[in-house]
Amino acid sequence: MNQLKPALMILFGSTGDLAAKKLFPSLYTLFTDGWLAPQTRVLGIGRRDWSQADFQDTVLTAVRASQPVRGDDVSDFLEIFTYHQMDISQPDDYTALWRTVEHMEEAVGFSHNRLFFLATAPELFPVVADQIGRGQPRVPGSFRRLMIEKPFGRDLASARNFNQHLRRYFEEEEILRIDHYLGKEMLQNILVLRFANHLFEPTLSAEHIDHIQITISEKIGIGQRGGYYDHSGALRDMVQNHILQLLALLTMERPERFDSEGLRDAKVKLFRSIRHFSTDILTEAVVLGQYATGPADEKAYRSEKGVDPESTTETFAALRFDIDNPRWQGTPVFVRTGKYMARRHASITIVYKQSAYPSLPQPAEPNRLIIRIQPAEGVDLRYNIKKPGTELTAIPVEMDFCQTCNFPGQSAEAYVKLLMDAWRGDLNLFTRWDEIEATWTLIDSLLDQRDDLPVYPYPAGRDGPEQADEMMSRHQRQWLDV
Amino acid sequence: MNQLKPALMILFGSTGDLAAKKLFPSLYTLFTDGWLAPQTRVLGIGRRDWSQADFQDTVLTAVRASQPVRGDDVSDFLEIFTYHQMDISQPDDYTALWRTVEHMEEAVGFSHNRLFFLATAPELFPVVADQIGRGQPRVPGSFRRLMIEKPFGRDLASARNFNQHLRRYFEEEEILRIDHYLGKEMLQNILVLRFANHLFEPTLSAEHIDHIQITISEKIGIGQRGGYYDHSGALRDMVQNHILQLLALLTMERPERFDSEGLRDAKVKLFRSIRHFSTDILTEAVVLGQYATGPADEKAYRSEKGVDPESTTETFAALRFDIDNPRWQGTPVFVRTGKYMARRHASITIVYKQSAYPSLPQPAEPNRLIIRIQPAEGVDLRYNIKKPGTELTAIPVEMDFCQTCNFPGQSAEAYVKLLMDAWRGDLNLFTRWDEIEATWTLIDSLLDQRDDLPVYPYPAGRDGPEQADEMMSRHQRQWLDV
Repeated sequence: MNQLKPALMILFGSTGDLAAKKLFPSLYTLFTDGWLAPQTRVLGIGRRDWSQADFQDTVLTAVRASQPVRGDDVSDFLEIFTYHQMDISQPDDYTALWRTVEHMEEAVGFSHNRLFFLATAPELFPVVADQIGRGQPRVPGSFRRLMIEKPFGRDLASARNFNQHLRRYFEEEEILRIDHYLGKEMLQNILVLRFANHLFEPTLSAEHIDHIQITISEKIGIGQRGGYYDHSGALRDMVQNHILQLLALLTMERPERFDSEGLRDAKVKLFRSIRHFSTDILTEAVVLGQYATGPADEKAYRSEKGVDPESTTETFAALRFDIDNPRWQGTPVFVRTGKYMARRHASITIVYKQSAYPSLPQPAEPNRLIIRIQPAEGVDLRYNIKKPGTELTAIPVEMDFCQTCNFPGQSAEAYVKLLMDAWRGDLNLFTRWDEIEATWTLIDSLLDQRDDLPVYPYPAGRDGPEQADEMMSRHQRQWLDV
Repeated sequence: MNQLKPALMILFGSTGDLAAKKLFPSLYTLFTDGWLAPQTRVLGIGRRDWSQADFQDTVLTAVRASQPVRGDDVSDFLEIFTYHQMDISQPDDYTALWRTVEHMEEAVGFSHNRLFFLATAPELFPVVADQIGRGQPRVPGSFRRLMIEKPFGRDLASARNFNQHLRRYFEEEEILRIDHYLGKEMLQNILVLRFANHLFEPTLSAEHIDHIQITISEKIGIGQRGGYYDHSGALRDMVQNHILQLLALLTMERPERFDSEGLRDAKVKLFRSIRHFSTDILTEAVVLGQYATGPADEKAYRSEKGVDPESTTETFAALRFDIDNPRWQGTPVFVRTGKYMARRHASITIVYKQSAYPSLPQPAEPNRLIIRIQPAEGVDLRYNIKKPGTELTAIPVEMDFCQTCNFPGQSAEAYVKLLMDAWRGDLNLFTRWDEIEATWTLIDSLLDQRDDLPVYPYPAGRDGPEQADEMMSRHQRQWLDV
């Protein structure tokens, strides 16, 4: 095991939710697992008037909330954190920041490896990136990397604009666009399932697959994120990124090379072959919904804090994607995602075609290969056996493998993996610009017609509006309860 | 559910083992499940001087040993049995037999549906078949069927001779050659796994499969069967019939028609494409063994009752079969079967090719699809997942489905199924003449050179001689412990 190179991580947004919930705990995991070199430092940046002790307390509280901590370990761990107060929207404030950075690096005596992490409000991304770009050019022999949380734009134009901005000062390989779904075990597992097994891959094509279903449902509403969410909605928040990434990993061609460029080439090619949402297919292929109050008197979306009382933002989307390439032509991919649905759940279901075995009195049920992502990770296989007895009848049975149960506690949290890869410069799980471009191009073909689409209310606690079920019926399919 | 047509079953060998262990219990199952019409009768034939009561006691004892019986049911059941004493090797004795048959049929007042079952010593098959053929021609509007236990000949010449004998008086579709393995749930399940699932079949070819292993091992020696077995051996007793049938169901092409002719056409085609054992491949493709005494002082084969003390009869055989057709060219099938091995066990293991996923630090283990036949029936799938954690490593895991556990008591015993099918005239699970011809032709290519092959001793309780392991090593494989 090779320790990660010593580096200074400069964390914009260090007083926020992401830092507390994901980054501090993940850094602690890297620390206790021995990955962090002794000279590693984290410089937290925020507007709040915090002392070093305040900041370290915040880190400690965050770590303790996530996992058991050991006294010795954690005090050593807290030592690596330093807090720097500033207003990141003020270019003048950066002079002092860079001075702090240099002081810290001098103190530990290592070269200028810098990992900038942008976990701020997205409207601040450009100014921060600008200041980093101008103030901190790459030092030869060292690395400089910029990790950027989603959203990366809100449509193709804004994404392109932001990207051009970044590219003034950063090379493509210095820009690490985070889609934290790619850090999840099961998403990486899709690659292993496909390419480290000879069993499934030969069947993954329109010749054998009837359709694919992808579901990501959340049991909660938007909570305190109304201000952000009301300008985003499910299409921007979930579909353009997480769901399309899932879809690509599952349906892309085998990469010509298994490095980060080869992998992302394969994904881009797949994104570009997804059929755009032309006007004539729009209403057949898209159903949008917004949660209303439910049987337990849940707060309707329009009553949430920060949401326009007449908002038409979608908290649910059901879509049919078609992949126009020889491998997948004729196999639709149905996707649904929403807030305040019946359960917290994420999975992929691959539904095979019906088998023609004329000896059976009734057709056998189609096989299903189910990749579970949330709440438990695992793989299920639904197939048919002969029903025991004297008659030749097929009945479906299930084999399953619960990864979460079989390897308790061994899953790497997505951000542990993403931080480690960022540190190493392994770009596999980060999104390349042309992926962003291709996915926004696709989603824009829908967003451009967004105003023509009704947004159907659904009661909180239900899996979206009835119109989503009707859409499936029109395509002779139904949502499967997995 | 349609009751079976009323018929008279005439059972030659009714005082023997097969009748007691399999046929009486299976008839009772058919009876209690309501399949037997009220006019059904069974006429047991034997040389012993038994009264009706003796015979019915034997039936009762046999049924009780196999399953719980209900008082009312079983007395009604015993009513259908009649015993007839005769020496079946004496043609003169048949006159009285046919008189009994006619009396019985008159008494129940039904037409002349007759199911003859030959469960006698094989050397008596021809004379019995002859007498039936001459004395009991088919009555128009009724059925006449002849069920014949194995062995069907001891080589091609004797099988052909016997068959020509039969065909003087019987049509091919009146001759029901039993291979009781075909009556087993899991063998019928192979068809369901292949043709009622879209998942496995596309991968069953040399493109994806490295090799196949078939194991049928018994934990016991030959017991009291020395007199028969010493003239047979594993090749005749297990390979020519059960193992080749297993192999054919698994590897045959999809039948053009799913009726009994289509199914058996497909099997014959497969049998004919198996490479014969030419002199140059013989020692690479065949290892024979004979059990010696083992660590627990087990009786050596040569010391068994009825066995020649210098016998070279094989109680173990390991073979490599090659299928010379486009689908399977290059995928060998390794087979082993033996007496007195470590465990009672029957299974098929389909070993997939190694996947090329260069991102892995070590190659992933090949997938395995395991069809378990004995002791428990079920399906296992061994595949690779990403090992949880920050590194990309694949580890093999298993999904299984235990049919025996999930449907306890619902499996139909092979003879229940075979009797039912015989009654219905469903020939699916009976072996057609050209199957016999093709399998003997193949096995003869080995038997013709039998004397050139050493027969290696192996200690009782071991899975055959070491030479069988060495044979696998020479083919860059190993026997898998499943």
